[in-house]
Amino acid sequence: MARIDLNSDLGEGFGIWQLGDDDAMLEIVTSANIACGFHAGEPAGLFRVCKLAAERGVRIGAQVGYRDLPGFGRRFMDIAAEDLLADVVYQIGALQAIAQACGSTVSYVKPHGALYNTIVTHCEQAAAVAEAVRMVDATLPVLGMTGSVFFEEATKLGLRTVAEAFADRAYRPDGQLVSRREPSAVLDDVTAIAQRALMMVTTGEVAAVDGTKVRISAESICVHGDSPGAVTIAAAVRDRLQTSGVEIRAFC
Amino acid sequence: MARIDLNSDLGEGFGIWQLGDDDAMLEIVTSANIACGFHAGEPAGLFRVCKLAAERGVRIGAQVGYRDLPGFGRRFMDIAAEDLLADVVYQIGALQAIAQACGSTVSYVKPHGALYNTIVTHCEQAAAVAEAVRMVDATLPVLGMTGSVFFEEATKLGLRTVAEAFADRAYRPDGQLVSRREPSAVLDDVTAIAQRALMMVTTGEVAAVDGTKVRISAESICVHGDSPGAVTIAAAVRDRLQTSGVEIRAFC
Amino acid sequence: MARIDLNSDLGEGFGIWQLGDDDAMLEIVTSANIACGFHAGEPAGLFRVCKLAAERGVRIGAQVGYRDLPGFGRRFMDIAAEDLLADVVYQIGALQAIAQACGSTVSYVKPHGALYNTIVTHCEQAAAVAEAVRMVDATLPVLGMTGSVFFEEATKLGLRTVAEAFADRAYRPDGQLVSRREPSAVLDDVTAIAQRALMMVTTGEVAAVDGTKVRISAESICVHGDSPGAVTIAAAVRDRLQTSGVEIRAFC
Amino acid sequence: MARIDLNSDLGEGFGIWQLGDDDAMLEIVTSANIACGFHAGEPAGLFRVCKLAAERGVRIGAQVGYRDLPGFGRRFMDIAAEDLLADVVYQIGALQAIAQACGSTVSYVKPHGALYNTIVTHCEQAAAVAEAVRMVDATLPVLGMTGSVFFEEATKLGLRTVAEAFADRAYRPDGQLVSRREPSAVLDDVTAIAQRALMMVTTGEVAAVDGTKVRISAESICVHGDSPGAVTIAAAVRDRLQTSGVEIRAFC
Repeated sequence: MARIDLNSDLGEGFGIWQLGDDDAMLEIVTSANIACGFHAGEPAGLFRVCKLAAERGVRIGAQVGYRDLPGFGRRFMDIAAEDLLADVVYQIGALQAIAQACGSTVSYVKPHGALYNTIVTHCEQAAAVAEAVRMVDATLPVLGMTGSVFFEEATKLGLRTVAEAFADRAYRPDGQLVSRREPSAVLDDVTAIAQRALMMVTTGEVAAVDGTKVRISAESICVHGDSPGAVTIAAAVRDRLQTSGVEIRAFC
Repeated sequence: MARIDLNSDLGEGFGIWQLGDDDAMLEIVTSANIACGFHAGEPAGLFRVCKLAAERGVRIGAQVGYRDLPGFGRRFMDIAAEDLLADVVYQIGALQAIAQACGSTVSYVKPHGALYNTIVTHCEQAAAVAEAVRMVDATLPVLGMTGSVFFEEATKLGLRTVAEAFADRAYRPDGQLVSRREPSAVLDDVTAIAQRALMMVTTGEVAAVDGTKVRISAESICVHGDSPGAVTIAAAVRDRLQTSGVEIRAFC
Repeated sequence: MARIDLNSDLGEGFGIWQLGDDDAMLEIVTSANIACGFHAGEPAGLFRVCKLAAERGVRIGAQVGYRDLPGFGRRFMDIAAEDLLADVVYQIGALQAIAQACGSTVSYVKPHGALYNTIVTHCEQAAAVAEAVRMVDATLPVLGMTGSVFFEEATKLGLRTVAEAFADRAYRPDGQLVSRREPSAVLDDVTAIAQRALMMVTTGEVAAVDGTKVRISAESICVHGDSPGAVTIAAAVRDRLQTSGVEIRAFC
Repeated sequence: MARIDLNSDLGEGFGIWQLGDDDAMLEIVTSANIACGFHAGEPAGLFRVCKLAAERGVRIGAQVGYRDLPGFGRRFMDIAAEDLLADVVYQIGALQAIAQACGSTVSYVKPHGALYNTIVTHCEQAAAVAEAVRMVDATLPVLGMTGSVFFEEATKLGLRTVAEAFADRAYRPDGQLVSRREPSAVLDDVTAIAQRALMMVTTGEVAAVDGTKVRISAESICVHGDSPGAVTIAAAVRDRLQTSGVEIRAFC
């Protein structure tokens, strides 16, 4: 029987400001990428979402990012490798303590936003993030893109890499995502997205923008939860997978 | 043979900005209260000082404070208990990961600045800090003032409390410190301060401002390192203690 | 013919995070208290709301607060007078430049959150805020509570004070607001709130919690816009006033 | 008689943290590039340095930078043009209010650190900074590098550009600075630097690293003040110029 993990970015409010519906998403996903305070997430908010995740048995991952609250970690920063390494160690440790205080633990690491995109190709930053994870706990898997420099660096250091796919994003024939700057980058048809997720899991393929089939070997599908529509899509993906006999379960 | 721990606040720069001479102080103290990023200390700087401390066998403590970089954590903040608890858990965890990446560990917790002073008497904040420490690791001792509400709360939760004394501060007859707002609050005579430290350790007493003897039962003496003069004083204290046969050793 | 100003707190998002419906509120109010970046409001967001306000002829006020994004400026900070003065000057100037770049100007100053509450009674902070306004522009009116130390200090410095009333808050017989900690502090019946606003304007009185009449001599009524319900209430207040012949106009 | 302006970066501490000797430098320079809070400078510190500058008749410029305190504005940020524009407007306005409260005014704008370097070639960011200055006050000159895209954009918008030269930096034959990554980038011989400054002013030329003469038509020379050695060099530059009959005067 096929099975898949569903992951989503959570804990991305800050103080009075909310983003997305963490509560609803924690009913849908099996892995919660929880912000660590640098791009979003003040400690008390992180505490609340970690507690909810712990109560529902949803696994917690450290979603590490650039230190850029006004830009939500979505702006590339040309940060030195040793500074980035320390920033990532700091973030993982902070969330570890909060997760533990809530009776859970940090089970994996996923880079956020511009950092995620940067380390697909940026060697120094990719190596710094991988080394930071190894320094904190060499048994922590990292979640990211197959074919990224980040995965190469992580593999070199003996980290387990967990590939994810995006059900609502258009793919290029080479397996990379279509840039968000292009109009067709993000899909919005609920049924189509859910069907696409199912195909990814059961056939290991997805249709690229030119119609060709691209191989996808993902252990996790990323779903978004930062808008009411997004929650509906995420729920539809989960439902479509389950009713088709796919087991929704955290990656091991 | 008498023995005492010497502690000092370190890692209190931020990015390009330095404060004090961490390198010199790490030759003097046995316990380093290292900032955790909320009142001072950006991750790469914390990494450097934790590494130095680890290399020299100086024990690392988490110096937790209010989230107030412009005020260096020296301004009282009327923060809700649950927010303070989460802030403290976050800070300890962040430093734990950095200490561990440097081959060391966080061995105790010491509140900083306005937080330190506030929880001498503020029940809710004192309880929040104590509970935060317990949640992260109930075996972590807390460093602070004898007679404080913080120590009461920590004791209630089963935490070990470690009392500290200040060789360069004037004491009131009731054993509390003379407020820094009074002109006589801080001593500056190197020889007198060193002698005072020796008396504290060997007799368990210190002369209050009115000449009466005050009982001091401290396991650690706090020395400052944030000015060239301060480093000289700290070195003199250490030297006076050692040449008088006092063993300088981290508290257990 | 009676007339009144309606003011509301706007521009209180930060980066990706939104708070309230600035667009809807700018159709209702005549004075927009726009955040200045210390408790909320990053520059690009402030730019957008200042531009909207300018286009609609809504007057812009500088809503100055404590430097506390995680606490949204709602936590008392024991900040030194000279630091607070500089913080307030900085905030007003920052918003002035943005308002001017949008073809408008800052026409008044209103303290926010914990600062607003603190300077009802805290002499040093009240004097610092008043002096800061005077230093930037002695012709800028300040919006606040009648009977506050802030108004006393502002008056001493020759600043014009503009009293505001709260249509949705319960009043004590002495004219002060019932604390938010008490269950009856905030009213939520739309019709009652709108009626109350009308009484305030036309009779200069409001019913206190014990039924006695309290004199209210407000030039402005504060309406909230940080929830869908709040916008409905604000619109109802405006509508009730207008259909009763009250002119909604910015204070001069 | 030849004349030249001397400029330096000041006000670059933050709260408790100091950087450089502002007091000494204000005896040397005629133009103070004062930080605006985004890469350095909290309001109370800016207030103090603006007051000193005002008292000594040193002109104040707004030294605007990326919002990056931990990186001191020295890390490139891929910030959107509209966000950068708003950030720059905000910073200039904040400093204007402080300068005015100190009896002075902001007389020019100089970008800092990574922003300075970026807009030598980055069109969108260069245009955003220029447009921000124009929006605040189209009569404000901008200080920077001849031949930069920033100067092109500023000129297009009708801003006056003021070219600066660096007495302590090595030049390439094409008139650009040797990158700091190369060992020969920064000169440290006091006498040689002072002589170099004199040549720049009196001959309009400087010797490039290959010995060829490069034309320099600067209205200002930038001197650094962030170390004791730097202050000595700055004083020597001023002394050499004055004793050679060059008038040290702010550009008009």
